[in-house]
Amino acid sequence: MSSQLENAGGTVLAAVIGLGSMGFGMARSMKRAGLDVVGYDIAPAAVGRFVEEGGRGAATAADAARGADIIVSVVVNGAQTEGILFGPDGIAGVIKPGAVFVSSATMDPAVARDLSQRAEVLGFHYLDAPISGGAAKAASGELTIMASGSKAAFEGARPALDAMAAKIYELGDTAGTGAAFKMINQLLAGVHIAAACEAISFAAKQGLELGKVYEVITASAGSSWMFENRVPHVLAGDYTPRSAIEIFVKDLGIVQDMARSERYPVPLAAAALQMYLAAAGAGMGRDDDSSLARLYAQLSGATLPGTNSKKE
Amino acid sequence: MSSQLENAGGTVLAAVIGLGSMGFGMARSMKRAGLDVVGYDIAPAAVGRFVEEGGRGAATAADAARGADIIVSVVVNGAQTEGILFGPDGIAGVIKPGAVFVSSATMDPAVARDLSQRAEVLGFHYLDAPISGGAAKAASGELTIMASGSKAAFEGARPALDAMAAKIYELGDTAGTGAAFKMINQLLAGVHIAAACEAISFAAKQGLELGKVYEVITASAGSSWMFENRVPHVLAGDYTPRSAIEIFVKDLGIVQDMARSERYPVPLAAAALQMYLAAAGAGMGRDDDSSLARLYAQLSGATLPGTNSKKE
Repeated sequence: MSSQLENAGGTVLAAVIGLGSMGFGMARSMKRAGLDVVGYDIAPAAVGRFVEEGGRGAATAADAARGADIIVSVVVNGAQTEGILFGPDGIAGVIKPGAVFVSSATMDPAVARDLSQRAEVLGFHYLDAPISGGAAKAASGELTIMASGSKAAFEGARPALDAMAAKIYELGDTAGTGAAFKMINQLLAGVHIAAACEAISFAAKQGLELGKVYEVITASAGSSWMFENRVPHVLAGDYTPRSAIEIFVKDLGIVQDMARSERYPVPLAAAALQMYLAAAGAGMGRDDDSSLARLYAQLSGATLPGTNSKKE
Repeated sequence: MSSQLENAGGTVLAAVIGLGSMGFGMARSMKRAGLDVVGYDIAPAAVGRFVEEGGRGAATAADAARGADIIVSVVVNGAQTEGILFGPDGIAGVIKPGAVFVSSATMDPAVARDLSQRAEVLGFHYLDAPISGGAAKAASGELTIMASGSKAAFEGARPALDAMAAKIYELGDTAGTGAAFKMINQLLAGVHIAAACEAISFAAKQGLELGKVYEVITASAGSSWMFENRVPHVLAGDYTPRSAIEIFVKDLGIVQDMARSERYPVPLAAAALQMYLAAAGAGMGRDDDSSLARLYAQLSGATLPGTNSKKE
């Protein structure tokens, strides 16, 4: 099998489609691991940046995918992933037989299952492989990947997975399971950020010393990974986006759609989604997701570090 | 100062009022540390249990408190605490001048401030000292205490605090601040348990392997202290109460009352409270708080380990 996946020179040829903060780091990690990497992005500047770093660029997604053993798609959602494969300029027709398409976008498991089935019909493999870890871990090749797909899809993707990830969960032999695990994680992450912001601004409203609140809570049963990670942005008054409000508008939207179609109630996720929508509606959609704390402060007259939300 | 707080023999005399799972362990920890401890509980059997262990028992709260240097109150809420001090059989009149009343119940900060002011008028000190850590840590003397109060209150309470806690946060010189920190913790803890249950039963509804979900999530950004601690109860199908649903009916109720009076919106805490109320209404009020997972499963037909919630 692996001989099919190597080109004449024995080097694995990988295409990366989408060179944003995640895709750029993933492309560099694969290049560093010895893969021959071709990058494409709808923004020519992103391709230029990769070329400056010694990578190879392509003018279209099809040019990048043609002849590749592995195509890693690093776009935002299921609709973009479908567009890349099967849209007007879709690459499905140029992917070589037996190659593997590695999809890292967060999406409804049903969409992942559908895309995988259409891929297999056309003769290439599909690995459902959502990622977790942020831009810094993408750059260092230390992502967490929640993957599912056929044995052939895993085997074909292996050189790329090993280059990109510190931890690869192999969650089953059909696409969709990886996506489902990722959605469970996003439900919790989205609720925990909202809870962290609800709590820290409530502490501010009561005049508590916020640095002390951070110290006590992170050592107590009320802590969460997100409280520990996001509250420092609030304490610094720094809402530069590491991950934006709009990401959770999207991801909790998917959770809500999935839950509605399965007749499963998600009151916590639904309440959190309303807060992300309110923050986006108030103009903070592209700001850091910890901006929910600013929203709570604005609504209540609480004062947070570096903001001017108190009504005077 | 400390000479005032010791009896003729040089031993600190401490009273513990409320010998439930927390108070019993706290009384034993103080006894082990060399304090002379008198215990009282409205249930005579609880007093008997403490006496069997070599402790001293009292027939009334006033008998326990009379002459004590430190009175540790381990009851459920602010109303019970007020009753112990100022109710028909209240002990406020028998507490000796300069002694300290250590209040460990979770309550609205405004109630803690009020009780403290009334105590100071009568000539004894009040330490606002809510606890965290559960029965096992109460028994081993390793609780976390979130305390605030006057310098005199801290000094008087010190022998008891040192005996009961591994970590004592000194959060300010007025009662109410400790209570406020505890409420921030309870807001987060209550939301995180509800989110953990919403997520794990949603995973069950989708047919995911729950042990794997636990492994992946606890290593990911969606984790929380409560997810890590409570989901194993669900995986074991064991809803024996370590902490009951009714505790969060009470604590998120306090959060909601505080937030309403301060005109601060708490949509996450409010959504979580509705789920605890639903679980209590469905007959699970005295079961473990992870019973919210059973509620979600019953509502949706998901199958959890050891339960029979799937409609057939």
